[in-house]
Amino acid sequence: VGTGLIGTSLALALRRLGVAVALEDRDPAALAVAVQRGAGEAVAPGAPEPGLVVVAVPPAATAAVVAGALARYPAAVVTDVASVKVPVLAALGQAGVAPARYVGGHPMAGREVSGPAGARADLLEDRAWVITPHAGADDAAVQAVQELALAVRALPVLMPADEHDRAVALVSHAPQVLASLLAARLLDSSDTAVSIAGQGLRDMTRIAASDPGLWGEILAANAAPVAEVLRALRGDLDRLLGALAEVAVPGAPGDSAHGDAAQRGAAQRGAGDGDPAQVLVDALRRGNAGRQKVPGKHGARPAATAEVPVVVPDAPGELGRLFAAVAAAGVSVEDVRIEHVLGRPTGVVQLSVAQAAAEPLAGSLQAAGWQVRG
Amino acid sequence: VGTGLIGTSLALALRRLGVAVALEDRDPAALAVAVQRGAGEAVAPGAPEPGLVVVAVPPAATAAVVAGALARYPAAVVTDVASVKVPVLAALGQAGVAPARYVGGHPMAGREVSGPAGARADLLEDRAWVITPHAGADDAAVQAVQELALAVRALPVLMPADEHDRAVALVSHAPQVLASLLAARLLDSSDTAVSIAGQGLRDMTRIAASDPGLWGEILAANAAPVAEVLRALRGDLDRLLGALAEVAVPGAPGDSAHGDAAQRGAAQRGAGDGDPAQVLVDALRRGNAGRQKVPGKHGARPAATAEVPVVVPDAPGELGRLFAAVAAAGVSVEDVRIEHVLGRPTGVVQLSVAQAAAEPLAGSLQAAGWQVRG
Repeated sequence: VGTGLIGTSLALALRRLGVAVALEDRDPAALAVAVQRGAGEAVAPGAPEPGLVVVAVPPAATAAVVAGALARYPAAVVTDVASVKVPVLAALGQAGVAPARYVGGHPMAGREVSGPAGARADLLEDRAWVITPHAGADDAAVQAVQELALAVRALPVLMPADEHDRAVALVSHAPQVLASLLAARLLDSSDTAVSIAGQGLRDMTRIAASDPGLWGEILAANAAPVAEVLRALRGDLDRLLGALAEVAVPGAPGDSAHGDAAQRGAAQRGAGDGDPAQVLVDALRRGNAGRQKVPGKHGARPAATAEVPVVVPDAPGELGRLFAAVAAAGVSVEDVRIEHVLGRPTGVVQLSVAQAAAEPLAGSLQAAGWQVRG
Repeated sequence: VGTGLIGTSLALALRRLGVAVALEDRDPAALAVAVQRGAGEAVAPGAPEPGLVVVAVPPAATAAVVAGALARYPAAVVTDVASVKVPVLAALGQAGVAPARYVGGHPMAGREVSGPAGARADLLEDRAWVITPHAGADDAAVQAVQELALAVRALPVLMPADEHDRAVALVSHAPQVLASLLAARLLDSSDTAVSIAGQGLRDMTRIAASDPGLWGEILAANAAPVAEVLRALRGDLDRLLGALAEVAVPGAPGDSAHGDAAQRGAAQRGAGDGDPAQVLVDALRRGNAGRQKVPGKHGARPAATAEVPVVVPDAPGELGRLFAAVAAAGVSVEDVRIEHVLGRPTGVVQLSVAQAAAEPLAGSLQAAGWQVRG
């Protein structure tokens, strides 16, 4: 139910496996595109009851459509793909539905495009598909949704709905807010100021390019968990602002009332926080520790990688030559970045490789005539 | 003066050009490494006065060393490389020095390593070198520092000191703080929550791995401009938190007192802000607009690029084959990213190319047997 990007992609993947798929969408045009792309047939009156119904409609409409499917198909398992799970369960509870046959899900697929025209049979491959069984869910229903995820080569991850919503608030929704707020700060600045920006700002604002309509809906649907993360972060920010006010040099730009600011700073940080310079260092240290938790390639922790910066002429074919040389060295690349600075191309490619492989790789590349930077 | 990473790298670049370089450092061991690496000779008693003195010592020591150099060498131009400029000028003013021969500078080089052992003759190549002449600076002195930057193939950018400090606060220091604070939030979370993180969180926390000692000094030296950016951002965050409190669903996780929160939310946002859902969308829209200002490759705006996602087997040599195929298509790659998800490699490489080149490239790669995702 719902032949948008996710629904149609899932249907295409199932059709490829020979599964019979009946499609419906309240928009006849979207339904027609999905049928024409081979995602399945439009639901026919009097058709046999489906074994599994996947509701893939916008978050705000999900609960009502799930309730409708549970009523229409009294034996079917019903799941959904909404990116926030607690509101769906809460709405079903309010509607008086006892959803033993309902199991929530969230396939974490890309969102750069939308609609059935952008659908691909492989969209969900290698993606996490979070499944959020509630206390009253049938084991067989949970099993059915897991099998669905595995069938289309996604990676099922079981998690309670509230834990899912808190997790995406932390790892996806709050980062989106911070990227947007930071990027918005650039609107007041001169082009010259922004022109000296390096890779850090590019990384920190990349997701600020996301679709405001979609993300507005997501933030509204998950408002309380997102606010919880952001309030905690604001508390940390206030402590850091307090320390900055205390260490600020009087008369420096932006410091119109240093004495007051320092007093406010001390008050914000609270008594017993000690040396304000140390407060700054401690915040940065906690950042180091938090970064260690972010998964790298293959879900591994990123601690054991090192960067090898290689100078590459900005001409077609040079990247191909470089990666051929890396392959000849027998080294697996964890990540790649191309450096950018103002005015002209740097031609520096940062290769992230396992720590132990960095020095041998640098040696091999130098021996093959590449310039490796220190 | 100062044979750390920047000082020694600059000296190596100048020696390569045949320029005579006299070195000093209060640490004899660091000086010996720089001399041994061919960066120049230790300053000898009775040596002729230098034409140009580059002070490359830690930020907090810079002003005193600059003042000393101006006194010792009454005809020399003196510059420095400290990453925050106003405090140096302010300290020189307090010391009663009339620094017509002093011109501040900030070569924006990488900081992953430190000390003379990590120095490279090409460290400053293709990097912005901000030069911050004050009102009393000699034109000839400004010219000399510009020529120095150009000689070592850096890109001189002229900017008043206070504008520089505000610019780096916005494009470098505040992003560092936000990355660290966001990464620190992960410390309270379960490993499962973090395991479902995607590329957004990885981007947003990458620079949280920075050196806390160095960055603590930088933040303290530029405290007022950094605080100005962060206070403005906190104001935006407060408005967004107000809107989240108003739209929050009662009973959702983290929402212990919804009615109160909504009232506080409305008060935070102020009267006349309108629909809270619209406040969220507007914040995201402003983020879109700010992101458009961030320079891409060659200093160009990033608006006109598109991503082409290609499935690449996780085996040595495959990246080389891919980039050879891209070169055969005659397309220049703006950026490269390797996707990561939990559990196993995705094998999806995101190629950023000019918008107009995306479809032809996808076609060429598919014709050559590559699987391009939608």
